[in-house]
Amino acid sequence: MPTFTQRLHQAVQKKDSRICLGVDPRAFGAELTRSGELEIDEYFSAIIEAAEPHIVAVKLQIAFFEAIGLLGPISLHKIMTTARNAGLEVIMDAKRGDIGSTADAYASAYLETGANFASDALTVNPYLGFDTLSPFIHKADEHKHGLFVLVRTSNPGSGEIQDLVLDKPGSPTVAEEIASRLTEVVLAELPLDEHGYSALGAVVGATHPGQVEKFRELMPHSVFLMPGIGAQGGDVNELTPAFDKHGFGAIVNASRSLTYLNAQAEADSLDTVGQVAKEAAARLQDEVNSVLP
Amino acid sequence: MPTFTQRLHQAVQKKDSRICLGVDPRAFGAELTRSGELEIDEYFSAIIEAAEPHIVAVKLQIAFFEAIGLLGPISLHKIMTTARNAGLEVIMDAKRGDIGSTADAYASAYLETGANFASDALTVNPYLGFDTLSPFIHKADEHKHGLFVLVRTSNPGSGEIQDLVLDKPGSPTVAEEIASRLTEVVLAELPLDEHGYSALGAVVGATHPGQVEKFRELMPHSVFLMPGIGAQGGDVNELTPAFDKHGFGAIVNASRSLTYLNAQAEADSLDTVGQVAKEAAARLQDEVNSVLP
Repeated sequence: MPTFTQRLHQAVQKKDSRICLGVDPRAFGAELTRSGELEIDEYFSAIIEAAEPHIVAVKLQIAFFEAIGLLGPISLHKIMTTARNAGLEVIMDAKRGDIGSTADAYASAYLETGANFASDALTVNPYLGFDTLSPFIHKADEHKHGLFVLVRTSNPGSGEIQDLVLDKPGSPTVAEEIASRLTEVVLAELPLDEHGYSALGAVVGATHPGQVEKFRELMPHSVFLMPGIGAQGGDVNELTPAFDKHGFGAIVNASRSLTYLNAQAEADSLDTVGQVAKEAAARLQDEVNSVLP
Repeated sequence: MPTFTQRLHQAVQKKDSRICLGVDPRAFGAELTRSGELEIDEYFSAIIEAAEPHIVAVKLQIAFFEAIGLLGPISLHKIMTTARNAGLEVIMDAKRGDIGSTADAYASAYLETGANFASDALTVNPYLGFDTLSPFIHKADEHKHGLFVLVRTSNPGSGEIQDLVLDKPGSPTVAEEIASRLTEVVLAELPLDEHGYSALGAVVGATHPGQVEKFRELMPHSVFLMPGIGAQGGDVNELTPAFDKHGFGAIVNASRSLTYLNAQAEADSLDTVGQVAKEAAARLQDEVNSVLP
């Protein structure tokens, strides 16, 4: 069975797409969902099935499902099943991170084949130290899944900690230091696929002009998951250095700009919702392809 | 209605206890639970009800419930209800952190009164920047709940990022810088209760000799949630500087050392399980009280 990076590579080649569709049911408040007025799994399943030819992965923002409460996991599971049945890679955007044995539990929840919420890849937070990433790395490697470590996030205040400059040779920032150490971990512990990528990917936002190139240099073996294009205002031209000469090495995520195009979406038919999302995904696919190196 | 820190203060005074009992159902593998052989909510409810006179709070490690899968939230909800009915503060140890609107969703899930998983306090991760803490801070303040920001964690590799030294006056570490900035946020945005504490607490591990005093100086208005005593090997004497002269300002968490005392616990009656945990909690209560300043 191919690894996560190999599966992603095959999909990118086949579809000529580097788009990840983000599912974050923010418009669906907990109250509406509980009352049964809105079926978030039907809404997003229609979008995923329609947009499938233009996307390679679906990123599920678990926070919005947790906000629903006790019934949230059921909706999450249904949408995951739709994405998997459509042949798409499923990325769980959970940004988990905890100490050893607890990290093990999170890894079992999201990276172990057969678990209810087994995903192709998981986002993780490195603040607790590299020892806390080990359980995730080993589980991902064992089950041919992937990780995206938060390195440089896309939010306005992300630099407050990530851009702090360290008192050491080369004056790296905190984020650059993490990037360098992740590459040390890759080279020491993980196999590279035939295209040079490992299971240890990174989240690198497209909202910081000029920074993508720097992080690409520091993490040559990591696939980048890139948020920030679309509703967050990132410029698509910033993406270029993330890709290798074969047009691989990164996937670009958009959530709101692909899935909330109609202010009155809940009044539209599911066919319309799907069609509009499909067209938006196709446009973003072309836009990203136009800036490949 | 009193705030989280006021409720905690009342409980500490009434019971003369600073103990938080950690619920992390690690011995209960997902398979066992799914097969119905073990009822984790009965096991931990028996422990909570028996230990109640000696503890002020219960910390739920959500990772282990997520590892159970679709049925995990149901067990989590039952144990939360037991803790609340026993008059204990419920701390959700979820270490969440994400960008603005997503942080909002997490805050709604865990800090909003009326939500299925509404907790008295939540642990959060600061790596994404202080702007990402704002939704949590505002929600906690509004609903009289609390936060514990990860500052200095208890795991062996926690220093890999948290102890990196910054290139700025005073040469603070990353963790010290975060501690100082959290105090700035407290002074700028949050009310202090009559004992000088705000809703913005901090996780400070007891496993790093000599560091508790430093973080207490940097965060005079934060209640500390202190892991590391018990199974993680922290020395109870390290706790002293965390407390103020009234014996308040910190709670000490122990999970495995209070709840997994019997290797054959699942073969014991629930009464025995509860009684053993109660005795362990009473011993830790006395031990912590013996090192108060």
